[in-house]
Amino acid sequence: MVKTGMATQTIATDALADQFATTRARTLALAEPLSDADATVQSMPDASPAKWHLAHTTWFFETFVLRDYVPGYHVYDTTYHYLFNSYYNGEGDRNARHNRGVMTRPSLDEIRAYRAHVDAAVLATFPDAARDLIELGCEHEAQHQELLLTDILHLFAQNPLAPAYRNEQHAVITALSDPVKWITGPVGIVEIGHDSAGFAFDCEGPRHKTYLAPHSLADRLVSNAEWQCFIEDSGYRRPELWLSEGWAWVQREAISTPLYWRGDQSFGLNGLQPHNPAAPVLHISHYEADAYARWAGARLPTEFEWEASASDLNQAFGHVWQWTASAYLPYPGYLPAPGAVGEYNGKFMSGQMVLRGSSPATPPGTARPTTRNFFPPTARWQFSGLRLAKDL
Amino acid sequence: MVKTGMATQTIATDALADQFATTRARTLALAEPLSDADATVQSMPDASPAKWHLAHTTWFFETFVLRDYVPGYHVYDTTYHYLFNSYYNGEGDRNARHNRGVMTRPSLDEIRAYRAHVDAAVLATFPDAARDLIELGCEHEAQHQELLLTDILHLFAQNPLAPAYRNEQHAVITALSDPVKWITGPVGIVEIGHDSAGFAFDCEGPRHKTYLAPHSLADRLVSNAEWQCFIEDSGYRRPELWLSEGWAWVQREAISTPLYWRGDQSFGLNGLQPHNPAAPVLHISHYEADAYARWAGARLPTEFEWEASASDLNQAFGHVWQWTASAYLPYPGYLPAPGAVGEYNGKFMSGQMVLRGSSPATPPGTARPTTRNFFPPTARWQFSGLRLAKDL
Amino acid sequence: MVKTGMATQTIATDALADQFATTRARTLALAEPLSDADATVQSMPDASPAKWHLAHTTWFFETFVLRDYVPGYHVYDTTYHYLFNSYYNGEGDRNARHNRGVMTRPSLDEIRAYRAHVDAAVLATFPDAARDLIELGCEHEAQHQELLLTDILHLFAQNPLAPAYRNEQHAVITALSDPVKWITGPVGIVEIGHDSAGFAFDCEGPRHKTYLAPHSLADRLVSNAEWQCFIEDSGYRRPELWLSEGWAWVQREAISTPLYWRGDQSFGLNGLQPHNPAAPVLHISHYEADAYARWAGARLPTEFEWEASASDLNQAFGHVWQWTASAYLPYPGYLPAPGAVGEYNGKFMSGQMVLRGSSPATPPGTARPTTRNFFPPTARWQFSGLRLAKDL
Amino acid sequence: MVKTGMATQTIATDALADQFATTRARTLALAEPLSDADATVQSMPDASPAKWHLAHTTWFFETFVLRDYVPGYHVYDTTYHYLFNSYYNGEGDRNARHNRGVMTRPSLDEIRAYRAHVDAAVLATFPDAARDLIELGCEHEAQHQELLLTDILHLFAQNPLAPAYRNEQHAVITALSDPVKWITGPVGIVEIGHDSAGFAFDCEGPRHKTYLAPHSLADRLVSNAEWQCFIEDSGYRRPELWLSEGWAWVQREAISTPLYWRGDQSFGLNGLQPHNPAAPVLHISHYEADAYARWAGARLPTEFEWEASASDLNQAFGHVWQWTASAYLPYPGYLPAPGAVGEYNGKFMSGQMVLRGSSPATPPGTARPTTRNFFPPTARWQFSGLRLAKDL
Repeated sequence: MVKTGMATQTIATDALADQFATTRARTLALAEPLSDADATVQSMPDASPAKWHLAHTTWFFETFVLRDYVPGYHVYDTTYHYLFNSYYNGEGDRNARHNRGVMTRPSLDEIRAYRAHVDAAVLATFPDAARDLIELGCEHEAQHQELLLTDILHLFAQNPLAPAYRNEQHAVITALSDPVKWITGPVGIVEIGHDSAGFAFDCEGPRHKTYLAPHSLADRLVSNAEWQCFIEDSGYRRPELWLSEGWAWVQREAISTPLYWRGDQSFGLNGLQPHNPAAPVLHISHYEADAYARWAGARLPTEFEWEASASDLNQAFGHVWQWTASAYLPYPGYLPAPGAVGEYNGKFMSGQMVLRGSSPATPPGTARPTTRNFFPPTARWQFSGLRLAKDL
Repeated sequence: MVKTGMATQTIATDALADQFATTRARTLALAEPLSDADATVQSMPDASPAKWHLAHTTWFFETFVLRDYVPGYHVYDTTYHYLFNSYYNGEGDRNARHNRGVMTRPSLDEIRAYRAHVDAAVLATFPDAARDLIELGCEHEAQHQELLLTDILHLFAQNPLAPAYRNEQHAVITALSDPVKWITGPVGIVEIGHDSAGFAFDCEGPRHKTYLAPHSLADRLVSNAEWQCFIEDSGYRRPELWLSEGWAWVQREAISTPLYWRGDQSFGLNGLQPHNPAAPVLHISHYEADAYARWAGARLPTEFEWEASASDLNQAFGHVWQWTASAYLPYPGYLPAPGAVGEYNGKFMSGQMVLRGSSPATPPGTARPTTRNFFPPTARWQFSGLRLAKDL
Repeated sequence: MVKTGMATQTIATDALADQFATTRARTLALAEPLSDADATVQSMPDASPAKWHLAHTTWFFETFVLRDYVPGYHVYDTTYHYLFNSYYNGEGDRNARHNRGVMTRPSLDEIRAYRAHVDAAVLATFPDAARDLIELGCEHEAQHQELLLTDILHLFAQNPLAPAYRNEQHAVITALSDPVKWITGPVGIVEIGHDSAGFAFDCEGPRHKTYLAPHSLADRLVSNAEWQCFIEDSGYRRPELWLSEGWAWVQREAISTPLYWRGDQSFGLNGLQPHNPAAPVLHISHYEADAYARWAGARLPTEFEWEASASDLNQAFGHVWQWTASAYLPYPGYLPAPGAVGEYNGKFMSGQMVLRGSSPATPPGTARPTTRNFFPPTARWQFSGLRLAKDL
Repeated sequence: MVKTGMATQTIATDALADQFATTRARTLALAEPLSDADATVQSMPDASPAKWHLAHTTWFFETFVLRDYVPGYHVYDTTYHYLFNSYYNGEGDRNARHNRGVMTRPSLDEIRAYRAHVDAAVLATFPDAARDLIELGCEHEAQHQELLLTDILHLFAQNPLAPAYRNEQHAVITALSDPVKWITGPVGIVEIGHDSAGFAFDCEGPRHKTYLAPHSLADRLVSNAEWQCFIEDSGYRRPELWLSEGWAWVQREAISTPLYWRGDQSFGLNGLQPHNPAAPVLHISHYEADAYARWAGARLPTEFEWEASASDLNQAFGHVWQWTASAYLPYPGYLPAPGAVGEYNGKFMSGQMVLRGSSPATPPGTARPTTRNFFPPTARWQFSGLRLAKDL
């Protein structure tokens, strides 16, 4: 039929279909070094098993694209709908988050088969009316690709054998040990947020005006060597440097270094490696970032200051997510999308702080100057670090 | 002596000394209906015993005025320094907060004697160099006066006998049941924060510019009758109305009404009373306020919107503290005061939301349009309610 | 009326009425040094406020004697029935145990008035059919007299002021530092348990046969000086000395001395006092007693061994409750009494260990060779110590 | 060499070597239906991963036989010593119990290789001086075989897919629905405990005298149909039937059926199956067993009554472990073995109740009339049921 012929042709030349295929393949590639057991275990309630990331991203396409837009599509396995929903209350009951790690079945290979089935069905049908949802699904999966890596890193960090996920190095990371240069930001009304050209998550808009007071930003990130000075100056033991909740947390959890420091080494996706003094410090909480900034006579930038100067900064992207001084709150005029896909960002706007930039674990091409990442102030298992700012 | 004579004269005509004497007397008057036991017990970790409020506010004057500015002053009782420090890490160890309720000794009468001693010493010496600290101490005590009432209310609410703290009514509360009128707020750059004429807490400044998008605010507060509609429309059972953390909280704590509702009655300082439908709803959390606003097709105002229109609002002060959409964060250029008295506001700028206005429990004359109250989003034992806002 | 006349006469000459009056007066005397606040606060979930002890023991007589056996008796205050039930499920809902300390009302004086009312009513009516219950109520109150003291001691121990409950010394305590003499116990079948002459709690019977293997018991209790040797020999840090649960508890709670040791002093009802080396160690858990015995190359006696040799032991009564190696379980043929008063001992026969003897806080004349006290193995706030035993 | 030749010959004809080989092979066979992921996950702190059972039992032989008795033996992997120690404090630090489930590496196949290495080394050397330890290791492994099954059952029960471990039925279970016959037990002095012929765990001795009062035991176990009557008679909702701690547990955990009941079905190693009314009830706690017995006007037998009549009972072995009324405590004269292997039974003699008999998961030939199994009174994931007893 003409229509099918067109559809096939469309797919062959369709940038979105390419994005879909590339994204889906990349997730599989990330899971390649993992055993069935590696992909099954949940090392803490905040993390998810790799298998779950693989299945949940597939569930997204099956539910919001195939089920909703492809007449006659039969759900692959009704149990999977329950197992691999994440937090979409609108989609009914789901397996409790902290319980994700007991699902030794289905196996990693069964999940791969589920992925293959859904991939084929999406590419064969590719409903026009669902193109926005397919794009959203790809961006959603990109986020889970990063989480898959942070969650595997956390899992392997619990293992006394300290297994490496991979052995190659990230070429992308630059290590800077020059003295910080201070970049003066714009003063007055600036426009913040996504302007609707190209994809963005709903929380990145609407684009709106905000007012910036005089300020400057460090041209580079805080390094491991600088963090070592903070430690040696008793930074973790001086209450006057800390927010009240942060100080309680440091004492309760007996925190004295970044999360994955082990003496002179850091644990990472490449296993245990000596600290690189000039590389950006990472795996720190917002509380630690805030205390460091106070110790350094500076402060964290607001997310608006960061965005307004993003193009002037070194190490803005691909190095570490950079904690800001901003709580994760809606922009003026923000409204979530209707229905279950709207349960994506807005409902988490409570108790979290914004991080800007991106990390080595962020899929290439997915970070924008307007991207808003967010985590609770205690979170450390992400690739999180900091950049300083100052009032002028 | 001349100096004494002058001092006496100063006191007699000194507005600050009047404020001191009035504030100190008012705290005693608030404690008048309480027994020794009432004043001793701590009903939850977030609340403090009345006796502790009486002693801690006294400790503030003894420590920061008498000890630091009156040569030769002898501390009344060294143990009290440990017992009645609140959270000033700079002032050394202190009794754990959750442990305040086991101190059956010193008795309420002994604390009254401690107050009398310190009051006399302050009034007899009234060091010029400490006038700012005396003023701060009075404002600090005013805050504790409100907490004393909210904490006693919480204590009495746990008692199956439902004792009343007092029997008179608040004349100040107006009950409004007219349809809401929407007041259009200013658009563009506005100035926010205290301008340094008269007292303000450090977190109310510096005065600074911010940008407001088009919006309007309800002229009055949400009422008990309106809240009843929210309940009857299953507001507490519909996840789509709630922030994710709020929904988890509602389910975990089995919340289905404001804190002190008991069927058709509310428990308050006057004991159990029938709901007044037109009176503002109170004793709700930020999560509840946010869910109600979403249910009503509106949102909470930001603290900046609230302040910019404060003079146009009904029920702005003296009714309920009004939850805003703003996280409690520092204003541009904010720096806490050096030393222990600086541990007052800045260190709490994490995990809390701003409330604006004031309540019937707020001491007369202490609330300003720039006042920023702040509590975690789960807090309900304060006199907290809400006012709606909308994007235009 | 003749009957009343006889009753009055009966009371005047009645040993049970004497016991009732004496017991009731003694409780009041124990509360004499306490303020309203002292009598109100609950320092941990396992302890109860003194006011609660005063009221609950009164509730027992009002409920099981006056309500059930005196026609026309009107309950003093129906709220009290709810407030002062302890754990008698058969008597309906009750205030949660951990919530006893928030009841600042009724006051201590109001509870005294309640006591006076019930005392007068019991003495005026003294129903023949309830004589067993009156006796049980007196013995029940005797137990609460001891708990009132242990609970007040725990409360005062939390107070940095370290207040003394009283200043006189116990004459009854003997301090023994002679080397232990080992007393050989009987071998073969012995009879254990109460033989029904005079009062006993139901768990002390039925009297029954048990078989004892060859063993001996220390003639005296373990002393503070001996405990000091255990500490100095790293007794609290050597896992091989401890039961598995005990070792986990020691580490989790960071236990390194008996409960109320403060350096060279112990805190007791007389306040802080230097350790008496020859006096029995007290305020230790079963885990500690068991570890000490293992360290000493001995073991704890079974409750049967203890009872069979009770008359041969020094320091058997009035010094410390002595942990045994026996779990608190029913004797052969044991059946609890029917109805709510039967909820007294049997339902606690799980997870607790038996202590034998009595302490300085035990009311005079209430401890028998057959008395079985019982607490969980972690309990330390009772006057608990140990005596060693050995297999032969 | 002659010696090797002799050793080989010894192994070929040696019953202990046969036992070793059979035991080791049986564990592998039990793990046969498991995937790497199945064998890795820990579904609760009280359970262990199958992989851990496989490795820990191997660690036992490597440590106590090869390392201690085979000169020149090189440890297979020093990390394993840390990872697979269970609770032997004498053997140094070990991986925290609740953390066993994060070890996705080593893989199941790597553990199988470890087993093969140790098996070959043990069989090749078979040191005479370690024969007792080899026998103990086999019995120890038999216990872990049962735990492997109960732990896998618990894991699979958390999975919404309800996977079956295997599909065949146990032929051994008899279902009895005839009315209970009461078997009169012996009265007077009986001998209890192992008499040293053949293997027994240390806690089964020393054999000793005890005295039994008149009593009778049910000839068969309580059935599912009878348990259904208990449920229908509100057994789980009547506090008077329960021990105090049991009642608190039932309410806190919202318990209303045996652990693996799902409506009209039970989940077991064969997956979901309809209840068999005449089969013994299983997966109940001690609290439930105790409440049932009280409801039935009976009680649980003591472990001594059970042992004294073991040969007269139906369904004594191979059906369910039967909760007794006895706390797990040492027999008179009991002393644990010196050294780390002595950390086997004695240190757990606190807070646990004895179960007698054996279950379908118990390896054939390993249960004796003197066997003492023990678990806390809340444990339900074992194959635990009950038999009634009565005083005469």
